[in-house]
Amino acid sequence: MKLKCLYASDEASSDVLYLSGIQVPDAYLSIVMGNRKIAVVSQLEYSRVKATSKYTEVYELNAMKAEVSHTLKVPLIKVGLAQIILYFKTISQAEFVEIPEDFPAFLLLGLQEIGIKVKLVEGSFFQEREQKSASEIKSITNANKASALGFKVAESALKESKIKEGKLYLDGSLLSSERLRFMIESALFEKGATAPTTIVAGGVQACDPHQIGHGALRADELIIIDIFPKIKSSGYHGDMTRTFLKGKASDAQRALVQSVRSAQKIALAKIKPKVYGSTVHAAVVESFTKDGYKTEKRTNTVTDTYVGFIHSTGHGLGLDVHEFPSLSPKGKALKVGHVVTVEPGLYYPEIGACRIEDVVAVTQEGSKKLSSYPYTWQFA
Amino acid sequence: MKLKCLYASDEASSDVLYLSGIQVPDAYLSIVMGNRKIAVVSQLEYSRVKATSKYTEVYELNAMKAEVSHTLKVPLIKVGLAQIILYFKTISQAEFVEIPEDFPAFLLLGLQEIGIKVKLVEGSFFQEREQKSASEIKSITNANKASALGFKVAESALKESKIKEGKLYLDGSLLSSERLRFMIESALFEKGATAPTTIVAGGVQACDPHQIGHGALRADELIIIDIFPKIKSSGYHGDMTRTFLKGKASDAQRALVQSVRSAQKIALAKIKPKVYGSTVHAAVVESFTKDGYKTEKRTNTVTDTYVGFIHSTGHGLGLDVHEFPSLSPKGKALKVGHVVTVEPGLYYPEIGACRIEDVVAVTQEGSKKLSSYPYTWQFA
Repeated sequence: MKLKCLYASDEASSDVLYLSGIQVPDAYLSIVMGNRKIAVVSQLEYSRVKATSKYTEVYELNAMKAEVSHTLKVPLIKVGLAQIILYFKTISQAEFVEIPEDFPAFLLLGLQEIGIKVKLVEGSFFQEREQKSASEIKSITNANKASALGFKVAESALKESKIKEGKLYLDGSLLSSERLRFMIESALFEKGATAPTTIVAGGVQACDPHQIGHGALRADELIIIDIFPKIKSSGYHGDMTRTFLKGKASDAQRALVQSVRSAQKIALAKIKPKVYGSTVHAAVVESFTKDGYKTEKRTNTVTDTYVGFIHSTGHGLGLDVHEFPSLSPKGKALKVGHVVTVEPGLYYPEIGACRIEDVVAVTQEGSKKLSSYPYTWQFA
Repeated sequence: MKLKCLYASDEASSDVLYLSGIQVPDAYLSIVMGNRKIAVVSQLEYSRVKATSKYTEVYELNAMKAEVSHTLKVPLIKVGLAQIILYFKTISQAEFVEIPEDFPAFLLLGLQEIGIKVKLVEGSFFQEREQKSASEIKSITNANKASALGFKVAESALKESKIKEGKLYLDGSLLSSERLRFMIESALFEKGATAPTTIVAGGVQACDPHQIGHGALRADELIIIDIFPKIKSSGYHGDMTRTFLKGKASDAQRALVQSVRSAQKIALAKIKPKVYGSTVHAAVVESFTKDGYKTEKRTNTVTDTYVGFIHSTGHGLGLDVHEFPSLSPKGKALKVGHVVTVEPGLYYPEIGACRIEDVVAVTQEGSKKLSSYPYTWQFA
């Protein structure tokens, strides 16, 4: 029998949340043994986890230690988490214990010390987490609706804003990245979603894809808005990006946006079961190359800058914002139920940056979009 | 020379955030070698981390791999994170690599595979994190002000609420745990603080200290409100609890609240440098025992219940809500700069539950309160 073992809180590990369906603030032991899903928790959590989680068995830590001491004939004082895992290994007759990549060092060393063989599971610890159920797909679709609400707020703020000396003003005061982010987050908060690191970055700032943006938003600059909220009640995420411009777009900016749009269309058309994530990524790379956009490292006196298409085409989405599978050079074959973002982007400090991101589920027929926000990217 | 090594994102590890002072969404390698604080990040993060973090040196992952390949004379294709750590171990002439308890298994196994000796650091990975600087103490005080704002919202809602058939109503509609939690979180959100798991739990629900509460709030029941917000700009937490009652308190409820109040006073008076956390905890246990409150396990047909004083007296507070040191049976000697919660509580389904929590910093003279919210606990 296979034996899988986790030690984490639901907040630190979406694998634990996937298994438990319940919030437990501190790390605890979870074990999967065939159809048995077992939790060993402190007395503080015991009643609640027993009453409301998805575990089939819940044990209180001290009671479990006593049982382990009795069965393994180890003095109670020497029974720790490693001995509890040994107990389950013994009764399951498993040859080794499967652990996830992020299994904590202290417990791995503890297992090694008492001679327990472990097997590291690379990538997804629960392979089935990659293929979403109908209800998970619904949760992700709902989370993308929260993203779309954020774009509605952003679009109307940009539309109504006025340009003064190159900067944007709304209702008489400066429209900064911080202010627009707060407006977006507030709207999402009202709907039960949190989006604490929403990206609202314009101009050169947007050329760093993980820069969340700060200071005045400016006219005639491409502004990337990337909203990846978590719905508090379900734990599932949305992830969408749109690129806006207030003022007058240059030919280079127009061409950049057009190229990203086509690349996204090409990627979306490629997605279906058995196609490799790496193939989808390669199609985007090829499209950008055809359009004449180079990806390269520029060395200058202060720091190196990477320009062009500097990230992967997409990633799995679910309880984590980034999960398997990926649309990247390492991307494996897609399967029905996979949910991935499709987010080509181009980044050049002298032009600006553009990224457009939607989410699809892989279906028998190809793919189904789980996100929607048709919009006007440019306002005079 | 000592060599410390971390591999995590700032979100997953407050040790990384403490070191970096910057948000990086994906896990990356951090190394501390004497006074050198080194980060090895992907090209996506490179410029931003180099420009705005607290690291003294930042390397781009692929460039670092090339350097390691050259220096260690290992083919580039064989250079991974473990070889990069070996490189720093070689140049620092460290005997072993210190890793934290939550260091990920995949990388520990990688280090073991190439024969690198590791030493697990139990407890705080950066001992200095336990003793807060003046600026950290200010951040925690500010975070507690956000908690206090939440109590103000809660107190006025309870004061203004009306009782109808035993349930509380505000402005004509039901005042549920969910509604009051949303009111509290909204007020904090406006102030740049997030508090997604604020506890608003009444009656029997409150007897489970980690139950966040759901459904109608009721008259004549003790209602525990525990607010532990994170200030988004600083990353530091507040943590305060107050217990309220709307309606008429029974003698047993009054006595329970009184006993928790005295226990908190006793604990606060004990706190000073060199006193053990275990001593503070023991004083609370003794006070409850004197007042006649027993801590015990009750076995019944459905599930076991633990009643009485069923958690520790307090815990360290900072970038994590729960960190070292602790006021518990395992609590060590307190030092100047330690910041701890002091939160005795009593839990009996037949009476209800009460917890009162404040935060103090240990000072030369004893302690200084970093939280304040004097209030009326009972409203008719």
